[in-house]
Amino acid sequence: MPLPSLQNDVFLRALMREPVPYTPLWLMRQAGRYLPEYNETRAKAGSFLGLAQHPEYACEVTLQPLRRFKFDAAILFSDILTIPHAMGLGVDFHAGEGPRFSRPVRTEADVAGLVVPDMADLQYVFDTVSLVRKELGGKVPLIGFAGSPWTVGCYMVEGQGTDDYRLIKTMLYQRPDLLHRILDINAQAIGQYLNAQIRAGAQAVMVFDSWGGVLADGLFQEFSLAYTRKVVQSLVRNNEGRVVPVIVFTKGGGPWLEDIAGIGCDAVGVDWTVNLARARKRVADSVALQGNLDPMALFGGETAIREQTRRVLDDFGLVGEGGHIFNLGHGISRFTAPEAVEILVDEVHAYSCGKHAILHQQSG
Amino acid sequence: MPLPSLQNDVFLRALMREPVPYTPLWLMRQAGRYLPEYNETRAKAGSFLGLAQHPEYACEVTLQPLRRFKFDAAILFSDILTIPHAMGLGVDFHAGEGPRFSRPVRTEADVAGLVVPDMADLQYVFDTVSLVRKELGGKVPLIGFAGSPWTVGCYMVEGQGTDDYRLIKTMLYQRPDLLHRILDINAQAIGQYLNAQIRAGAQAVMVFDSWGGVLADGLFQEFSLAYTRKVVQSLVRNNEGRVVPVIVFTKGGGPWLEDIAGIGCDAVGVDWTVNLARARKRVADSVALQGNLDPMALFGGETAIREQTRRVLDDFGLVGEGGHIFNLGHGISRFTAPEAVEILVDEVHAYSCGKHAILHQQSG
Repeated sequence: MPLPSLQNDVFLRALMREPVPYTPLWLMRQAGRYLPEYNETRAKAGSFLGLAQHPEYACEVTLQPLRRFKFDAAILFSDILTIPHAMGLGVDFHAGEGPRFSRPVRTEADVAGLVVPDMADLQYVFDTVSLVRKELGGKVPLIGFAGSPWTVGCYMVEGQGTDDYRLIKTMLYQRPDLLHRILDINAQAIGQYLNAQIRAGAQAVMVFDSWGGVLADGLFQEFSLAYTRKVVQSLVRNNEGRVVPVIVFTKGGGPWLEDIAGIGCDAVGVDWTVNLARARKRVADSVALQGNLDPMALFGGETAIREQTRRVLDDFGLVGEGGHIFNLGHGISRFTAPEAVEILVDEVHAYSCGKHAILHQQSG
Repeated sequence: MPLPSLQNDVFLRALMREPVPYTPLWLMRQAGRYLPEYNETRAKAGSFLGLAQHPEYACEVTLQPLRRFKFDAAILFSDILTIPHAMGLGVDFHAGEGPRFSRPVRTEADVAGLVVPDMADLQYVFDTVSLVRKELGGKVPLIGFAGSPWTVGCYMVEGQGTDDYRLIKTMLYQRPDLLHRILDINAQAIGQYLNAQIRAGAQAVMVFDSWGGVLADGLFQEFSLAYTRKVVQSLVRNNEGRVVPVIVFTKGGGPWLEDIAGIGCDAVGVDWTVNLARARKRVADSVALQGNLDPMALFGGETAIREQTRRVLDDFGLVGEGGHIFNLGHGISRFTAPEAVEILVDEVHAYSCGKHAILHQQSG
């Protein structure tokens, strides 16, 4: 049975820098703990892994934010650690503590034993993509995603969250050969993984390089961006006769915007330290930009939310021509009030729509 | 009794962009837990506060790294929270957990009760400065320091370390008037505090804006930099007939280098995400630059330490004319081997000296 045709493609058109009637938006971690219905489903699933690994639950939480808010895209509910989990590294999610690996990758022997996982072991992810597409009924496009080779590698070597990245950086400086081997395997795995998501129905894909920004200038390019490029270059970017745009987001990647824009992606996600007007000039509008409201602005009350939202839209400037996807500069905080998101969505659509109207009048 | 004259002023000359025979260096947190002798003194003092508040102990740990390494500057051993401590906010340092405030500043009433502390309550800091100057015997210059108004404010509002800065950012977005009041008081206090350090003998001063980088573009300028500027502008920068240079370091401040360079400081500290060659161009050599080796490079073994050190020196490029102070891009890790620091110091001096020699030959 063919999938229903897309009713709202504003997000996809903005990504391809085509004209749009308003600025589309979605939020990183929009399916998450700030929603009471998410917490209910998670309780039913018993655990985070139970949620991510069961297509019915994962589909349900993917759709939840779309029922509340007029987001212009859905994003697959999953985790960047599905790949090391499939690699057999013993990933476990302890409530409130973050993930822990029982078999981190630290020695020459660990690295020698590492292989690209069988994608069949990740079928639950692709099943979720297919199910979400069916359930979405063409309402908005579905984004698939993965972590970057470097970011996934950080977890694999550190074995858990870290403040100083001491273990992986020690490997980087002391045994770059071992780290390159890990990153190469990760790049292959992530490329296959995203291609399978696209085949299952993902209409755009995003690579989260959440920890790229902890690397030194020069080493970011060598140990993170070079491998994200391999991933991007390996993608078969076509779904149902339409290009599948690729978004690359590096938290703290502001210093390297030009480099990131040059790896073949269609859009670059930026955090709130980046000025969107200057960013546009730096990449010479060669890619779309996604971002970049400080997630904490959602704690400021209605006036501040509307003001800060307009500031982001104004910074990007020119509207109606596409090229801007509104988002936060990082995942939404679990402490956010859903009402604050309601205000944000209203302001992005209303203000960008109004600006478009004025622009069209002026040029009409 | 007049203080002994300075035997090594390479650091001060580099800060003023005057010719130097080699690139000077010191390390942020050079008096710290990576040195066994520091831990011994701390044990004697009983606690972190016991160490910071007793001039004999504070002087001893300030001098310890100078006995081991040929650093070109000493930095006062103290803490950026001495000021909120003197404000009566109940600052306590729990071992392994970081500081906690028993009376954080969160409400309108809290802010109304806040006053610039009596500098007499910080006399132990100024006594330490005087004692260190005497004990240094003119070997190298002594750097005084303080936290920036914003960074100190983060601790005052959050009451402890934080991942998301939710409390202070909620205040920023919701009640900017309250936050401006806190920052104004902090700027006054920090200005008086640094001036008293200069009068006591500090030969350079540094403002640590450790958390400026968590602010959004535009808000960094308004809530952090504007107040650091107030501090810098309020300084009486003269010690024993010589200019006292001012260094401003914003972790994650790369996006705003030009702005930071414009507040009247002599040098800008930069972290390792910043490329020093590009940074020099951006500030048009209007200030000196301090930095910016990744502290984790010290875990890479001798070859990597020497290689990464040369990379930083080469990035800055032109030598002999001053303007570069070698440092890490953040504080040295407590897990660093002192032997690694030995290698670093040797490489900075030897390589920069060799480069200077070549340069002089070429121009001679």
